[in-house]
Amino acid sequence: MESEPTRVMVAVNESTLKGYPHASISSKKAFEWTLKKIVRSNTSGFKLLLLHVQVQDEDGFDDMDSIYASPDDFRQMRERNKAKGLHLLEFFVKKCHEIGVGCEAWIRKGDPTEVICHEVRRLRPDFLVVGSRGLGPFQKVFVGTVSEFCVKHAECPVITIKRSAEESPQDPADD
Amino acid sequence: MESEPTRVMVAVNESTLKGYPHASISSKKAFEWTLKKIVRSNTSGFKLLLLHVQVQDEDGFDDMDSIYASPDDFRQMRERNKAKGLHLLEFFVKKCHEIGVGCEAWIRKGDPTEVICHEVRRLRPDFLVVGSRGLGPFQKVFVGTVSEFCVKHAECPVITIKRSAEESPQDPADD
Repeated sequence: MESEPTRVMVAVNESTLKGYPHASISSKKAFEWTLKKIVRSNTSGFKLLLLHVQVQDEDGFDDMDSIYASPDDFRQMRERNKAKGLHLLEFFVKKCHEIGVGCEAWIRKGDPTEVICHEVRRLRPDFLVVGSRGLGPFQKVFVGTVSEFCVKHAECPVITIKRSAEESPQDPADD
Repeated sequence: MESEPTRVMVAVNESTLKGYPHASISSKKAFEWTLKKIVRSNTSGFKLLLLHVQVQDEDGFDDMDSIYASPDDFRQMRERNKAKGLHLLEFFVKKCHEIGVGCEAWIRKGDPTEVICHEVRRLRPDFLVVGSRGLGPFQKVFVGTVSEFCVKHAECPVITIKRSAEESPQDPADD
């Protein structure tokens, strides 16, 4: 009876808080908000497209103590990054399976703003959900915000979900 | 079993195209998009809060041929405006009843940007849907956009639904 499921792209990323691949506070919030407020009990009516963009520079310098002395060290780093990305997606995919909502998940490398807008053009989701740290104008000068860029440039409707004040870490630029 | 319905505020306004109180192309689009892509068959899971903001100056000069020669003329004008607003809301409320989704609708007067943000603070919807003409930066200089203001200032998540190119009237500032 129902038409094709509504396709919701959700951009997810790793937390900046720990060395371990936990989801960022804001992307976890955006994901949970989507399930609670949009999908609700209508699990067959929606399909989540979970996009994780790995920022290469940041990942490369994640372990400041590492010494890169041979091509093997770089290969190991790449494998470690890949494992972290997969671990992150597993977290979201597992949640989708638990509640029975269809999903697809994939990893891309590059600048999150460009990659997200590119993937929107490629996959034409019905809308895009992005988390936001909810930074003030002064804080934004230093860190930039992926969500604002997407609202302006993504070729589909975009909904930005802000972290609540209680969820914010001590340094609000962290996530 | 399910928690409280998701409360979706939808800002609706009259078309600039006719003297008759038709809904604007973009607010109709935003409303229909919400039903098709978000509510879907889960009509008990959502409640629509339909807000119509009447812009007083525009309404007052709607009939350029009218002559206001007595207090009665102004009273009649106010009654005509009220009737137009009610007629507009009736269109949306009727659609909600046809498909069985709960709704509330009301009219406020004033500047749409301020009134919408005020009503968001007052009623705390889960998110706000606003239509947009999808104007380019050059066109926007002259007409301003309610949707951009709401995205920045409303104290809840906001999703902007653009008119498609085929739906746009000859003058894209019209709606």
